[in-house]
Amino acid sequence: MKVMIIGASGIIGRAVAENLEKDHEIIRVGKSRGDLLVDLTEESSVKALFERSGKVDAIIATMGSVHFGPLAEMTAEQFNQGLQNKLLGQVRLVLIGKEHLNAGGSFTLTTGILTHQPIRTGVNATAVNAALEGFVLAAANELAGLRINAVSPTVVTEALDKYAPFFPGFESASASRVALAYRRSVDGIDNGKVFRVW
Amino acid sequence: MKVMIIGASGIIGRAVAENLEKDHEIIRVGKSRGDLLVDLTEESSVKALFERSGKVDAIIATMGSVHFGPLAEMTAEQFNQGLQNKLLGQVRLVLIGKEHLNAGGSFTLTTGILTHQPIRTGVNATAVNAALEGFVLAAANELAGLRINAVSPTVVTEALDKYAPFFPGFESASASRVALAYRRSVDGIDNGKVFRVW
Repeated sequence: MKVMIIGASGIIGRAVAENLEKDHEIIRVGKSRGDLLVDLTEESSVKALFERSGKVDAIIATMGSVHFGPLAEMTAEQFNQGLQNKLLGQVRLVLIGKEHLNAGGSFTLTTGILTHQPIRTGVNATAVNAALEGFVLAAANELAGLRINAVSPTVVTEALDKYAPFFPGFESASASRVALAYRRSVDGIDNGKVFRVW
Repeated sequence: MKVMIIGASGIIGRAVAENLEKDHEIIRVGKSRGDLLVDLTEESSVKALFERSGKVDAIIATMGSVHFGPLAEMTAEQFNQGLQNKLLGQVRLVLIGKEHLNAGGSFTLTTGILTHQPIRTGVNATAVNAALEGFVLAAANELAGLRINAVSPTVVTEALDKYAPFFPGFESASASRVALAYRRSVDGIDNGKVFRVW
């Protein structure tokens, strides 16, 4: 299988590539490094990506940023950053990418534990992740012959040096454990599911 | 209590006003008619609304549009319409409105059954509603001294002439029954809840 991983140089993306490369051909994609480059916020950049890659069998997105900050000071413009980046970026990848997936192919998007377990300063993340899980639920009914799932990781152990203060008392999961969920989505039969790693 | 209803001339907004006006003072707000006017997609318009209204005790939003259409033909730009209107419009109302709510005041936003039960052409609606429910869940933890809830109605009986073909086999609810959920949110003690009317 030809598997495209967008965000392949991130902590999760690397672990997913490491897991899947045992059995699949991996196309590593990133914003600034990889076999191919893409900016998911740009329509033309996503189209150009698939012109270069040709058809693939699985598309995995492990990238996307949101706004972190206290609600008391948040502006609509800041809230919109997560909508345009992590949310609409992954949605755009699906809307364009569905024409470049072979029959039986799959999308695997990335949400996160904050969908259901909010943290301080994480309002934008919770809303964006919830929207992506809604998108997966609904899109699964309309992507004839293709599948779509999401992986919802807890805070990743390898990122605790940076994120621990935001996740007090949360259990972390190693990137290699999170990667298993992507493997299930790609090689399994599920459609419209959110695989929680928490 | 001084209750502001945004979308007061819509089917749900009218029923909510009718229910609440027995016990509360109602400020009817709409895009084109009402005691006051507002465009929730415009920062300056929302600020001007509260300059005119002064402080209130409850803010209810029953308006917001999304894009309906088959996923096969959907563009990211179309998907963004629902993000900018129903989602970011209601979020903006909270971000600005929280400075104009009296202590103990409440927000009540509107999502919908599509969050959990997708329909054909409703991918954008499902994602937008899910995001709003995530926003309510997370914001409830950060709105010190205020409350925030959402009402998730099924298709409204009075709107069946227009929407019945999109909701095959769905049970409808009368607008007056849906209005009860807004009453619970405004006069009750709940915070961070989604009141399902289905």
